[in-house]
Amino acid sequence: MKNRIITISREFGSGGRTIGKQTAEMLRIPCYDQELIRKLAEQSGFTQDYVAEESEYSEHPGWFSNAFTGRSVNGLSNQDYLWSLQRQIILDLADKESCVIVGRCADYILKDRSDCLTVFIHADLEKRAERIVKIYGETDQLPQKRLLEKDKRRAAFYQFYTDMKWGQAQNYHLALDSGAVGIERCISIITDLFSD
Amino acid sequence: MKNRIITISREFGSGGRTIGKQTAEMLRIPCYDQELIRKLAEQSGFTQDYVAEESEYSEHPGWFSNAFTGRSVNGLSNQDYLWSLQRQIILDLADKESCVIVGRCADYILKDRSDCLTVFIHADLEKRAERIVKIYGETDQLPQKRLLEKDKRRAAFYQFYTDMKWGQAQNYHLALDSGAVGIERCISIITDLFSD
Repeated sequence: MKNRIITISREFGSGGRTIGKQTAEMLRIPCYDQELIRKLAEQSGFTQDYVAEESEYSEHPGWFSNAFTGRSVNGLSNQDYLWSLQRQIILDLADKESCVIVGRCADYILKDRSDCLTVFIHADLEKRAERIVKIYGETDQLPQKRLLEKDKRRAAFYQFYTDMKWGQAQNYHLALDSGAVGIERCISIITDLFSD
Repeated sequence: MKNRIITISREFGSGGRTIGKQTAEMLRIPCYDQELIRKLAEQSGFTQDYVAEESEYSEHPGWFSNAFTGRSVNGLSNQDYLWSLQRQIILDLADKESCVIVGRCADYILKDRSDCLTVFIHADLEKRAERIVKIYGETDQLPQKRLLEKDKRRAAFYQFYTDMKWGQAQNYHLALDSGAVGIERCISIITDLFSD
């Protein structure tokens, strides 16, 4: 397959962000992750923290929760407004250059392109718990609980905006268990497939 | 990861069986697919055709359908009886030697082993329709319809016996879209991971 874009969807704590970043470095193409948040904050006028939260997580997991969040911009909820901005930024980036895009439903937004390799990274709860404690430190909440809540809110967001099931293998060209396969190996499988 | 066993779960028409067979040839280990059906037929006294159907497909897709099929062996339904036989055959094979096992919920049956690489193969409907017409020929039913029915019945069987969702990326170490990635490439990714 000839690809120009790689999208990395990932479970929280699975190392998907690291995999995206290092894959992009190997391929010498940009990786959009924090940079995407920055663009979104700049264009919307919201803070980066607010944008990071609202552009990927449902406030309360559940089908209709997004419909009832505060409305403020042109009659759209903030989240709907950010969704449409984010969608346009991702479409523009994909038009402009080869890149890796981490999260933010980019797999769905770019699904009609034939030059996009879509990847899903996951790992078991234990491995992810170890990883988030190592990277983000301890909090009052048990790491397993933090993970399950994040997963639930991310899945609800994805389902609400894409009408597809988050983590369903059929939605991705490649899905990898980074805990079993190893981060380095995930990177080499993705770069090999991209360069084919 | 150090592996001894590879399980290949697959959507009908995705080439999963071919991938399993050729991966096993490359690795010079046996591939259990038809051979498993033969063992199951021999041990149960049922025909191979009956066993092939009853050991992987729900008669009517739906949660409780399996509970109401005809009962005949030791008070178990035929399907429950075949399930327990199949489970034991798969556990014994995995104990005995390195091998590839295609389908039959082997990923679930062997989930507690740390030396088992679990793979899911899928492809989009169009690619699969092309493939089944090429391999199995035309029938009265449209290939897309045949595929969707097979998928539905296979998913229902899997969910009934494993209480997990068929095709959920998190259930497998590796999931690949054989239509996009290509059969040859799927084989090389799996053999590389196995040999690591």
